[in-house]
Amino acid sequence: MLTKAIEWLGDRVKILDQTQLPREEVYLELSHYQDIASAIIAMKIRGAPAIGIAGAYGVALGALKIESVARDEFLDKLRVITQNLAATRPTAKNLFWAIDRMQQVAQTGKDVGQIKKALVAEAVKIHAEEAEATRRLSQLGAELIRDGSTILTHCNTGPLATAGYGTALGVIIRAQAQGKRIKVLATETRPLLQGARLTAWELKKASVPFTLITDSMAGYFMERGEVDYVIVGADRIAQNGDTANKIGTYSLAVLARENDVPFYVAAPTTTIDLSLASGDKILIEQRSPAEVTHIQEVSLAPEGTQAANPAFDVTPHRYITAIITERGIVKEPYIDSLEAILLTTN
Amino acid sequence: MLTKAIEWLGDRVKILDQTQLPREEVYLELSHYQDIASAIIAMKIRGAPAIGIAGAYGVALGALKIESVARDEFLDKLRVITQNLAATRPTAKNLFWAIDRMQQVAQTGKDVGQIKKALVAEAVKIHAEEAEATRRLSQLGAELIRDGSTILTHCNTGPLATAGYGTALGVIIRAQAQGKRIKVLATETRPLLQGARLTAWELKKASVPFTLITDSMAGYFMERGEVDYVIVGADRIAQNGDTANKIGTYSLAVLARENDVPFYVAAPTTTIDLSLASGDKILIEQRSPAEVTHIQEVSLAPEGTQAANPAFDVTPHRYITAIITERGIVKEPYIDSLEAILLTTN
Repeated sequence: MLTKAIEWLGDRVKILDQTQLPREEVYLELSHYQDIASAIIAMKIRGAPAIGIAGAYGVALGALKIESVARDEFLDKLRVITQNLAATRPTAKNLFWAIDRMQQVAQTGKDVGQIKKALVAEAVKIHAEEAEATRRLSQLGAELIRDGSTILTHCNTGPLATAGYGTALGVIIRAQAQGKRIKVLATETRPLLQGARLTAWELKKASVPFTLITDSMAGYFMERGEVDYVIVGADRIAQNGDTANKIGTYSLAVLARENDVPFYVAAPTTTIDLSLASGDKILIEQRSPAEVTHIQEVSLAPEGTQAANPAFDVTPHRYITAIITERGIVKEPYIDSLEAILLTTN
Repeated sequence: MLTKAIEWLGDRVKILDQTQLPREEVYLELSHYQDIASAIIAMKIRGAPAIGIAGAYGVALGALKIESVARDEFLDKLRVITQNLAATRPTAKNLFWAIDRMQQVAQTGKDVGQIKKALVAEAVKIHAEEAEATRRLSQLGAELIRDGSTILTHCNTGPLATAGYGTALGVIIRAQAQGKRIKVLATETRPLLQGARLTAWELKKASVPFTLITDSMAGYFMERGEVDYVIVGADRIAQNGDTANKIGTYSLAVLARENDVPFYVAAPTTTIDLSLASGDKILIEQRSPAEVTHIQEVSLAPEGTQAANPAFDVTPHRYITAIITERGIVKEPYIDSLEAILLTTN
């Protein structure tokens, strides 16, 4: 039974507030697109695929509330809504992909009533397609995993992060469902502790044995030969395979290479951004220093301490053994294989 | 003005409780060796050189309290004391070095009264020598640093960690004192946050500009070319140069190598252990999982979460650009240079 991270209720969206986990399972019902935008900014909804789905529902909710009946006026107002939603978080490609797709649907509708219906239907369709994509990529990725493996993963990439089956965590959970004996090393993922809070919660729920480690311990276990695979998700994959993902991913990739551990990225194709030639073009979100100097209101550092908080880093493609998508597993040269897979039809 | 992390008051030891920093400067006066042992275990006193000094004072305090006047009986009781002190933390060489030196002094004394006096004098001497060693190595290391540099450091290696001038942090503070413009990237150092709590506190006190980062961000800044040096301390250095230091150090060394950033280890020669051929012989302390699942009583992970907590890792010598000691800066082949430097007289 999958956690329903995001659920469409006809005229509102029900979400599981991920900032409250693992302490409490608090569900929120959001009727306004601004609430969706705020929930994304505050990371109540997070994970690139889930942000895309939430963005699509946000556009639908926003459209339903527009009172204009004139098509042009309606579309002008819709544009403001999509701009607001797009401004919430800059790195995850899926958000922009979903919003673009919603915009295109809006353009093709003849009248406002029809457009509203089409937008709701499209958001629901995006959700279903994305969930199905994570189901398929989890299955494909699981084939790579040998029985008896220990898999190191970073951040959270399960049902919570995808409103579906998960990406990296989907692969892990699926591998166990195939009857393989799997152990997980889950990095806590500072600053916001998605590993300690969310991945631990999801692995516990899925009955996958795991050990929580600090981000700084990953190298220790790899160097001792105790890690068989590193599998992570992605927020944006450039044309050449360079991959933006949660801060710390780059370090894991370098350590994996150094210790001959395969390093896999698992993501739906909606994370791929062929418009960016390489990873240095990916905009990295810089979040509040308070997330580093504090943990859940506990102050860690002396008052006035300056901190940096880049939310993502970019892993150059040369460190990536393969990228697992719902359309297949691609390898170097990514500059060819990523484009090819986007051109295949499902 | 150096922080007095440890101070001898004639019949007791005054320490600054490092678990309370940066919130409060709490000083404790300890009269029993058991209190020293407990303070080391609880990391109220920490840092390899400081642990060595505290261990020496612990032996002196223990000796003063022994009521036996028969030499053999006294030495038997002293042996129990040294064994207890040695059992506090297994990794830092300095502790065992200091305790051994105290034991040797005890053996050479003729009667109990004389031995007690000699032990107190020896502990005070060890403290003075170790403080002087960190002063000299800070000075030598600072010569390596170019004006305008950004230095990344891990854990805490300042006056707090050494009861002297510091090792890695001593080099940094000394480089600034030489008039060089220095910026520091300080890793928070999970799980116990010695970077966020202690290094930030010491850098603020020394007016060295710094930015706090999570451990997972080090690679991001190195890859962007924003780090000129990585400098860390050490808990034990094997004959071949392999170096045990705070968990996460190995990852920093691999990332530094990958990004052509010089990686320096700064330590007094008392950290060198020629009896161990290589780093895989170094015993790594495994601490309580609660340090990973909790931060200052705040629970981070779901109840029952299993966590690993190796306190140190080993950086193979091939990643180390140079080791900075009070007797000089040594490089590969460490198997020759470390032995040679231990044979030189001051």
